[in-house]
Amino acid sequence: MDDSMRFGRGFTLWFTGLSGAGKTTIANIVEKELRERLGGVEVLDGDIVRTNLSKGLGFSREDRDTNVLRIGFVANLLTRNGVGVIVSAISPFREVRDRVREDIGEDFIEVFIDAPVEVCAERDVKGLYKKAYSGEIPQFTGVSDPYESPNAPELHIKTDEEEPSDSARRVVEFLEHYGYLRRVEQYDRA
Amino acid sequence: MDDSMRFGRGFTLWFTGLSGAGKTTIANIVEKELRERLGGVEVLDGDIVRTNLSKGLGFSREDRDTNVLRIGFVANLLTRNGVGVIVSAISPFREVRDRVREDIGEDFIEVFIDAPVEVCAERDVKGLYKKAYSGEIPQFTGVSDPYESPNAPELHIKTDEEEPSDSARRVVEFLEHYGYLRRVEQYDRA
Repeated sequence: MDDSMRFGRGFTLWFTGLSGAGKTTIANIVEKELRERLGGVEVLDGDIVRTNLSKGLGFSREDRDTNVLRIGFVANLLTRNGVGVIVSAISPFREVRDRVREDIGEDFIEVFIDAPVEVCAERDVKGLYKKAYSGEIPQFTGVSDPYESPNAPELHIKTDEEEPSDSARRVVEFLEHYGYLRRVEQYDRA
Repeated sequence: MDDSMRFGRGFTLWFTGLSGAGKTTIANIVEKELRERLGGVEVLDGDIVRTNLSKGLGFSREDRDTNVLRIGFVANLLTRNGVGVIVSAISPFREVRDRVREDIGEDFIEVFIDAPVEVCAERDVKGLYKKAYSGEIPQFTGVSDPYESPNAPELHIKTDEEEPSDSARRVVEFLEHYGYLRRVEQYDRA
C-alpha cells in the first residue's frame, strides 16, 4: 500500500482482539468521526452479524471461521463499492483473517486491539470472563480457546497503555496518511 | 416512488420466480448493461449466497426464509450506500419478500419473472424438474413446495410471451423512468 490519494475509495478497518480488549469502544469513536467526515460508514460487529447472517452458528473452530468469512464476504462487497467499513469481531484465527485480507486486498486494514487477557478479564464489561473461568461458558477466546495475534497488523493498539480517544485518533490518522480520508487542518477532536 | 432524479442512488432489483423462469438469463443482460452505464453493479444470486452466507441451510420454510433475509440484509447494506444490486433468487414466500421490501424501502424494485411451471419444467435448464417430479428432489418450489406470486411487483415479466432482451430492456427503462439511470439517446442495444 502506498500513500497515493484514495479519497472516495472503500476500505475495511478490521478490529480484531479479545472480548473486552476495547474493540467496540474504539470503533464507536472512529465510527462517529467517519460518519461526520465521510458522510457514512458501515459497522459490522460480531453481534449484528451473528443475528443477521450467522444465526445458528456456534463457537466451534469451523463455525467461528464461517462467521468471520461471512463478515469478510459482506465487508468485501461494500469495500469494493467504495464504502468505508468497520468490522469489530474477535476473529481469533490468523488463517481465516488472512483469507479475508486476500479477498479484500490492499484496502484491508487490520487493527489489532490488544490487551492482556488479565486486563480484559478485570474489565469484564459483559460479565463473560467470570462465566468463562467458572466453565459456564465453554470455548471462550483467551480463556479456553486460542487467540492468534496478527503477525503484521496495519495498526497495533495496546489499550492498557493508551486512552481510547488516542487510539481512535491513530486509526483516523492512518486513514488520512494513506489517502482514504482528507486531512483536516486544526481538526478539533475535543 | 415518484420519478424524481435519483442518479447515484442505490437500488435493489429483486428478481423472484420459479426455477427456470428466466431470472438468471434476464439478470445477466441487465447486469451487462448496468455495468457499462453505471460502472458497476453487484449481483447476489441464490447460489453465490448459499455458498457464502447460507451454507448448511436446507429448504425448509424456515431455512428458505433465513436465506432470503440474509440476501435482503446484504442488499440493503449495499443499496443504502448507493450501490445498484441485482438479486436473483426464487424467494418463494411473499411475507419474507415484503419484509425485505420494508427494510430497503422505496429503492426495492420487485421484478416478478413469471412463467407457468409447465413451461419452466419443459425448459428444465438444470435438469431439476425431472428430479423434482420423480421425487428425487423434495420440497421443490412449484412442484412440491409453494410459490407465492407477488401481489404488486414493480415489474411483471412473462417470459413465455417475451424475449429476454425485451424483458431486460423493460427493467432498464424502469430504472431510467424512476431516475436511477440516465436515459441514453439513441442507445444502441444491438
